[in-house]
Amino acid sequence: MFKIDLNSDLGEGFGAYKAGLDDRIIPLITSANIACGFHAGDPLIMQKTVKLCKLNGVCAGAHPGFPDLVGFGRRNLNASPDEVKAMMIYQIGALTAFCASEGIKLSHVKPHGALYNMAAKDYKLARAVCEAVYEFDKDLPLLALSGSMMQKAAEEVGTVFASEIFADRAYEDDGTLVARSKPGAMITDENEAVERTVEMIKNKRVKTINGNYISINPQSVCVHGDSEKALLFVEKIRAGFEEQGIEICPIKDIIG
Amino acid sequence: MFKIDLNSDLGEGFGAYKAGLDDRIIPLITSANIACGFHAGDPLIMQKTVKLCKLNGVCAGAHPGFPDLVGFGRRNLNASPDEVKAMMIYQIGALTAFCASEGIKLSHVKPHGALYNMAAKDYKLARAVCEAVYEFDKDLPLLALSGSMMQKAAEEVGTVFASEIFADRAYEDDGTLVARSKPGAMITDENEAVERTVEMIKNKRVKTINGNYISINPQSVCVHGDSEKALLFVEKIRAGFEEQGIEICPIKDIIG
Amino acid sequence: MFKIDLNSDLGEGFGAYKAGLDDRIIPLITSANIACGFHAGDPLIMQKTVKLCKLNGVCAGAHPGFPDLVGFGRRNLNASPDEVKAMMIYQIGALTAFCASEGIKLSHVKPHGALYNMAAKDYKLARAVCEAVYEFDKDLPLLALSGSMMQKAAEEVGTVFASEIFADRAYEDDGTLVARSKPGAMITDENEAVERTVEMIKNKRVKTINGNYISINPQSVCVHGDSEKALLFVEKIRAGFEEQGIEICPIKDIIG
Amino acid sequence: MFKIDLNSDLGEGFGAYKAGLDDRIIPLITSANIACGFHAGDPLIMQKTVKLCKLNGVCAGAHPGFPDLVGFGRRNLNASPDEVKAMMIYQIGALTAFCASEGIKLSHVKPHGALYNMAAKDYKLARAVCEAVYEFDKDLPLLALSGSMMQKAAEEVGTVFASEIFADRAYEDDGTLVARSKPGAMITDENEAVERTVEMIKNKRVKTINGNYISINPQSVCVHGDSEKALLFVEKIRAGFEEQGIEICPIKDIIG
Repeated sequence: MFKIDLNSDLGEGFGAYKAGLDDRIIPLITSANIACGFHAGDPLIMQKTVKLCKLNGVCAGAHPGFPDLVGFGRRNLNASPDEVKAMMIYQIGALTAFCASEGIKLSHVKPHGALYNMAAKDYKLARAVCEAVYEFDKDLPLLALSGSMMQKAAEEVGTVFASEIFADRAYEDDGTLVARSKPGAMITDENEAVERTVEMIKNKRVKTINGNYISINPQSVCVHGDSEKALLFVEKIRAGFEEQGIEICPIKDIIG
Repeated sequence: MFKIDLNSDLGEGFGAYKAGLDDRIIPLITSANIACGFHAGDPLIMQKTVKLCKLNGVCAGAHPGFPDLVGFGRRNLNASPDEVKAMMIYQIGALTAFCASEGIKLSHVKPHGALYNMAAKDYKLARAVCEAVYEFDKDLPLLALSGSMMQKAAEEVGTVFASEIFADRAYEDDGTLVARSKPGAMITDENEAVERTVEMIKNKRVKTINGNYISINPQSVCVHGDSEKALLFVEKIRAGFEEQGIEICPIKDIIG
Repeated sequence: MFKIDLNSDLGEGFGAYKAGLDDRIIPLITSANIACGFHAGDPLIMQKTVKLCKLNGVCAGAHPGFPDLVGFGRRNLNASPDEVKAMMIYQIGALTAFCASEGIKLSHVKPHGALYNMAAKDYKLARAVCEAVYEFDKDLPLLALSGSMMQKAAEEVGTVFASEIFADRAYEDDGTLVARSKPGAMITDENEAVERTVEMIKNKRVKTINGNYISINPQSVCVHGDSEKALLFVEKIRAGFEEQGIEICPIKDIIG
Repeated sequence: MFKIDLNSDLGEGFGAYKAGLDDRIIPLITSANIACGFHAGDPLIMQKTVKLCKLNGVCAGAHPGFPDLVGFGRRNLNASPDEVKAMMIYQIGALTAFCASEGIKLSHVKPHGALYNMAAKDYKLARAVCEAVYEFDKDLPLLALSGSMMQKAAEEVGTVFASEIFADRAYEDDGTLVARSKPGAMITDENEAVERTVEMIKNKRVKTINGNYISINPQSVCVHGDSEKALLFVEKIRAGFEEQGIEICPIKDIIG
């Protein structure tokens, strides 16, 4: 039986600013990555989003990012590994507190934006991320790019690792994502995106932008909930999974 | 046997900015109130301060404040009770995560500055503070002004309460602190401050600025560690307590 | 000939967050109050909004607020008059720089949100606001509540004053706005709002919530551009003014 | 006659946090680079520092940096050229407003920390910096690293350029500063630092870390005022200049 987790970034508003169709996407996913106040999110929004997860039986995870609200955490920042580790612990703790207040358990941690991308390629940052998660709670899963430096560091640190794939992104031969600035980086055809994802899940491999196959270990797929179009794609990918006998279930049932 | 806890505000630097003689005051106290990043403190400083507490066997507590770094959390902000509750949970969680990473337990929560003062007088804010602490952890003590609205709300919510007194501040007849802007608000004579504190601890009463006695329940005294003079006063008050047979011990041994 | 300026708050997004239908409202108004980065707005948005004003021949003014992004500058903050004066100068300067870069002149300053409301009632804050504007540029108009402490302080400091009225708000007998929490605070009937505004402009008086008439000096009306409904109301009020022979023109042509 | 400007970074406190011996260094220099609130400084401190410059007859310049208070603007941030240009204009404007309020003129702009270093090497960022200064005021000098990309961009954009040298840093053969992480990056011997500076000023050349001579155009030397030791060095370098007949005067008298 094939299984996959569907994760999405939630709680990305700030103060009076709204972002994302959280109440629409949440019934369609199994894991929520909730912004923790550094790149998006504020205490009230975090609390509300955790309540929404609880209500829908969706796993609530932390989505820590760089302290860069104006850049939405998408700009590389040369923070030191020590700084990254501490900012991870801080944000994980903040979200955990809202889970504790609602009587639920934090399910996972997924770094956001530039922090995710930098730590996918830089072993020292990856190790800082993994240590932060492990030292906070040795049973807490880190959700990050399949085959990346984060996976390598997680194995060495002992951090529980959940392997993430992307339906709408092309891959390089080394398993990293093709930079958005390159042609062909985005899979714009939705049917192709669904097919690629099914292929990844069933055959544990993906065809790279150069036409080669590399192995991959899909445990969670990232989907978006920021537009009507995005929501329709999630419904399409869910239908595709059902048709192919792929069960959608939370991370913990997959990494078991 | 008389017992008292000595608490002090620590970890009040930010980034490159230093504040307080943390390594000098910490061996002299039993409870540290650690800034949580909103009015002071940052992830690295929080981590370092928690480690310092662990090393010295001093209890590590959270010191959440208003999101007002430039005002050091000392300016009244008309945040709603819901906002106050959420910002309390957020900050308590952030500090708890550093405690968890170091393998120690968060000992208490003491609101900072304007949040402390506003919640001491405003029942709705006091209730928000008490609910935040209680819902996060029903066994976690809130350290706040003896006889204040926070004490009243704690009793109603069920929050464990530790009663704080001030050695260097005058009291009004209703148990609130005399505003700093009024003459006589500060007890500037150090011997008088020590004597008043001993009187409070031994006889559970304090002479107000109007010359009346009101009852008080001293479980923790707030001391400062931001200057040589402040450190000398802490040594003086410790000597005074020893002479009078008052034992200095952590909150949990007092509120038992 | 009756004349009135139409002002609206613009540039209220932040980073990735959008706010307001700026490109739709701007052709309908004569004066833009542009957020300056403390309660909303960021450098890129300020720059873009100033360019938009230039393109449409609309006057660009500064809309400084409290440093409270998460609260959108709507929460009272007990900043001192010195702090208020300095934060006003800072924000006015920041916006002026974008005007200078585009080769246009800053037209006016209107404080935002809680800062506007607090300074309307507190003479010391009002004076700080007026001094900030005057010392920066003695010919720069301050746009603020008709008959408020800001008008009084402006007269004493020497600040050029432009008197603002509200179409959709009820007035108390002392000329202050009825608090939003009170019944009847908002004029929800659009025709009534237009009629009241015309009455204010033509007869320089307004009927208060208690049924009394008080005198008022309308030089600018505040309109909103954050929804389709708001835009329709602006078109309605413009039509009403045309029908009544009230010319819509910039502040400088009115206070001239 | 040889001439040189002495510049120093001032106003680097924030809120309750103090930084630098501003009142001690200011009588020893001719140009102050004043932090503008993004990496350090706040409105009250900016105002106070501008007043201090005016009182001492020292030129007041803007010292804009990355929006990274916790990192003191020292961490590389991959902001786009558009973002850099806008954040420069914003900060220059904010400081200019305090100058205008005090009746003095902004004398120059010097980017801070990581922004300075990144723009020294990256032509697109350098161009953004130069355009910001030029479009704000075409006569305003940019103070930046001699021979850097900023000098090149300034020539192309038309920005007035003042060439900065460092007394205590080693140079690479291409005129960039040796990275602090490399051995020999810092000139720790004070006499050597003074001699090197005199050599640069008199012979317009500097010996690189590899022993080669490269040409340099010294118009301003950066000195520090954050410690007693730093102040003593400034006195030493001033004495050295006097002895060698090098006049210390403001930028405008040099680039004239």
